[in-house]
Amino acid sequence: MKIVLSQLNYTIGDLSGNIQKMANHIEKAKADGADLVVFSELSLCGYIPKDKLNYESFIQRCYNALTELASHTKGIAIVVGMPTRSNLSKGKKLYNSAVFVANGVIESEIHKTLLPTYDVFDEYRYFEPNTNFELVTYKGIKIAITICEDLWNLDDPKLYPTTPMDELKKLNPDLMVNISGSPYSYNHVEERKNRMVDNAKNYKLPLVYVNQIGAHTDILFDGGSMFINQTGEIAEELKYFEEDYRCIDWSKDAVYKDNSLDYKDEDIELIHDALVMGIKDYFGKMGFKKAMLGSSGGIDSAVINALAVEALGAENVLAVLLPSKYSSEGSVVDAEALAKNLGCPYKTISIEDMVSSVEQTLEPHFEGYAPDVTEENIQARSRGLLLMALSNKFGSMVLNTSNKSETAVGYATLYGDMCGGLSAIGDLYKMQVYEMARYINRNGEIIPEAIINKAPSAELRFDQKDSDSLPPYELLDKILSLYIEQQKGWEEIVGEGYDEHTVRRVIKLVDRNEYKRFQAAPILRISNLAFGIGRQMPLVAKYYN
Amino acid sequence: MKIVLSQLNYTIGDLSGNIQKMANHIEKAKADGADLVVFSELSLCGYIPKDKLNYESFIQRCYNALTELASHTKGIAIVVGMPTRSNLSKGKKLYNSAVFVANGVIESEIHKTLLPTYDVFDEYRYFEPNTNFELVTYKGIKIAITICEDLWNLDDPKLYPTTPMDELKKLNPDLMVNISGSPYSYNHVEERKNRMVDNAKNYKLPLVYVNQIGAHTDILFDGGSMFINQTGEIAEELKYFEEDYRCIDWSKDAVYKDNSLDYKDEDIELIHDALVMGIKDYFGKMGFKKAMLGSSGGIDSAVINALAVEALGAENVLAVLLPSKYSSEGSVVDAEALAKNLGCPYKTISIEDMVSSVEQTLEPHFEGYAPDVTEENIQARSRGLLLMALSNKFGSMVLNTSNKSETAVGYATLYGDMCGGLSAIGDLYKMQVYEMARYINRNGEIIPEAIINKAPSAELRFDQKDSDSLPPYELLDKILSLYIEQQKGWEEIVGEGYDEHTVRRVIKLVDRNEYKRFQAAPILRISNLAFGIGRQMPLVAKYYN
Repeated sequence: MKIVLSQLNYTIGDLSGNIQKMANHIEKAKADGADLVVFSELSLCGYIPKDKLNYESFIQRCYNALTELASHTKGIAIVVGMPTRSNLSKGKKLYNSAVFVANGVIESEIHKTLLPTYDVFDEYRYFEPNTNFELVTYKGIKIAITICEDLWNLDDPKLYPTTPMDELKKLNPDLMVNISGSPYSYNHVEERKNRMVDNAKNYKLPLVYVNQIGAHTDILFDGGSMFINQTGEIAEELKYFEEDYRCIDWSKDAVYKDNSLDYKDEDIELIHDALVMGIKDYFGKMGFKKAMLGSSGGIDSAVINALAVEALGAENVLAVLLPSKYSSEGSVVDAEALAKNLGCPYKTISIEDMVSSVEQTLEPHFEGYAPDVTEENIQARSRGLLLMALSNKFGSMVLNTSNKSETAVGYATLYGDMCGGLSAIGDLYKMQVYEMARYINRNGEIIPEAIINKAPSAELRFDQKDSDSLPPYELLDKILSLYIEQQKGWEEIVGEGYDEHTVRRVIKLVDRNEYKRFQAAPILRISNLAFGIGRQMPLVAKYYN
Repeated sequence: MKIVLSQLNYTIGDLSGNIQKMANHIEKAKADGADLVVFSELSLCGYIPKDKLNYESFIQRCYNALTELASHTKGIAIVVGMPTRSNLSKGKKLYNSAVFVANGVIESEIHKTLLPTYDVFDEYRYFEPNTNFELVTYKGIKIAITICEDLWNLDDPKLYPTTPMDELKKLNPDLMVNISGSPYSYNHVEERKNRMVDNAKNYKLPLVYVNQIGAHTDILFDGGSMFINQTGEIAEELKYFEEDYRCIDWSKDAVYKDNSLDYKDEDIELIHDALVMGIKDYFGKMGFKKAMLGSSGGIDSAVINALAVEALGAENVLAVLLPSKYSSEGSVVDAEALAKNLGCPYKTISIEDMVSSVEQTLEPHFEGYAPDVTEENIQARSRGLLLMALSNKFGSMVLNTSNKSETAVGYATLYGDMCGGLSAIGDLYKMQVYEMARYINRNGEIIPEAIINKAPSAELRFDQKDSDSLPPYELLDKILSLYIEQQKGWEEIVGEGYDEHTVRRVIKLVDRNEYKRFQAAPILRISNLAFGIGRQMPLVAKYYN
């Protein structure tokens, strides 16, 4: 049996575009003499359409699209993901399904049993879990079809009472097929491969595993679809962050040699490719071409500038230098050198006149008040205002330049440097931003060394350094990671040897700045716990630090 | 048996504050000779602590607080809501529980069976559903304890396969107790009472129903706790949007006379009280006292100004008039008259110099480009910047002034009039804002008639009217409600007799402005479908309008 793994980049809600892509792979598969094409989870409508699923008109459009897609399956079979209506008298109205279509006929619907509802997943919001287990038989082969999370209940303690493959194994299948919508995170690359290998070995069955690629706003999908032998070798592993097509000439009991790729957790190349795809897809799927950013001569904007140029092309990225009297000469020179290295257009606009005008306007109202953070924020917000005006006038989108460390502790100005349509490095801690800069320079200097070597500064007053207000980033990032990703309380973190005063101060900053993050731009998610939908905290609360 | 319904306003995470409030009611109940005090759902930690529940240190703090609370129960029993640890080898690690404590001893934990995961609810993110049904027996009375949603599975089609009270009824209870965290919406007031009455009648059992009051950022709880006879009359109904305490001298088989309150859906008084509480609690629980807002002389800012004065006191609300050359004289005069009527401080700051300075700064870069929405946005963002500067300097929080109609269609400037820490009327359509203004004026003019009668205008260019860009609000609001609250597609809305071109244009505006709402301030929720966590839409998507 010839089986095609079809790893595509879908757009949510673009039913006609999605089925066109699938139809192209079906035609290619037919030309290759394939029997079966496997697409990924909710491929028809894009994973995941969120509350569009509550619209009956949207569901009907999915069924219409399925009918159209089925018309392309003469002489071949497909497994396609889509929401289907439940006919039960109780429970949610929809299933998350794998629809098996052969020779133009919708043969069966297999529903997802395990509905992830944690982190960025919220599937029980929409779907009823499956409770009925059956195989699909095609050309004499008995196939156990499951959907993503269904294969993730192997380890103890188990998150779900039911393990779908345990049930399906009783029916004596020949082959496992899993259609996935499994997002990338740098902590997840090896784990996913290991878990899928565990499934093959545990059930002594070969596994066809198909994931999607592409960015759906903040959530990035990396692909890495696989064919795994019943003995656990990864015989085929598809590309990461690229569409891919692989036709496997599979015969029962055959064992193919290990041909897996060698990516590890925290691989900087994958993080880099994830972010470039994230920017590219946000713009491409939104119909935007042009980006701009405030280029300060600091490391964060330099990395964003470089990533944006890779994603969108140098001619489409405008670096805007917005110096003030507090900007060091180096900042301007370094930002210019960066733009020249990247070959992207840049312009310099002093914020001095605007800031003076604001200060004059406010002078009578501020009488008797000493200068404080207000004046610093006026500068940051003046930059934000000028960038947004340029964005409006030129029809280009502003890229936010905040990193995860400063987003965490609120070392950023709401409506100032927090402005922008997309945060590309908002899930990279400061130390990871440095690592990314070095990776960008792997084949020669793109980001000037001066930018990498200078002490981090917001340059909102003379001789300001980040270290005046914050612990050194080497320390800050470690505490943040323990608190945010590992969800440890202050006592536990102090128990690991960190200074109590510092830990409690950092946690207090994180907690007190929920209100800022509530209004932040969407952040490309690359960790297992990014700010955004995957971390939902009360705004109004008393904390215990 | 004397039973106390304790309807309190909790703060999320403020364990010591919450148990202090509960202890006060316990002491009062002891003085009244009561046997049992019933608190609301997750009362110990506040409903709902969101991802704080993922912190083991937070759960441990809840257990410690329970121990402390239990020490107050000598000679009395309580039902208190809190997260408890599951001891199962499979499933989520927590239950949403009602803990029964009598005479200092933790007697039993009853777990929630039905976990709402839709709209603003996301309980399956955290909790394992209960599958084990048992009664609590106290002083010879067999009590069926359930938690909120557990009593909401009466109607067909049923959302859940299990109906907890059907199981508990088999054990022959004498009394039902339901502890709730049931948020207010103006579509929900009658429904909730009717459903609880249905439960009493259906199971032929009296019902003690205890809800909380208070605002948890965007989600508003109205209270309205009840004691209902087994024959369905509401014998006691507690206050709305106020803490309350009611001691019932209950004896088995007794039937008390109907004593219910007469609130209906869409009652403007309740909507008003909800918003005032929402503002008051946001400030109070955050430790803020002072608010400010941009007062334009329009209806939206006038209503916010009046509500804020009610919530925080006139002396704590600063109205900032920010006129430009496009502001009509009426706007300034009307805003001044409003501030005088309200007795709140106001100041006037012209944005002209700042806008000129911005335009001069940008002039060389805008050469060859015609004026467009950019220049309008510069004005809105200049106002935003000045407000935020005043907010920083004076330590007061900016109230956002957007309504639901303009938020829906994106008729607002990101970082401009969209700025602010809280949106108090972002869930009121424009026509509802007018209704609220008339309610505010119920005892005499507070909002000047001129403000109510003028044609809505953003005043960002000469003679601008909202109706230049948008359908009349009477029509717009109806289409928006069908699309947003009723989740109908454009064909269905057109099928109800609306013009196709208008409907598709409105829907397109709503869809295209998801990105703006993503960065909006939290919105006080008063409808069954507010922008915010209750409506989760993909940002990057192709829609089908």
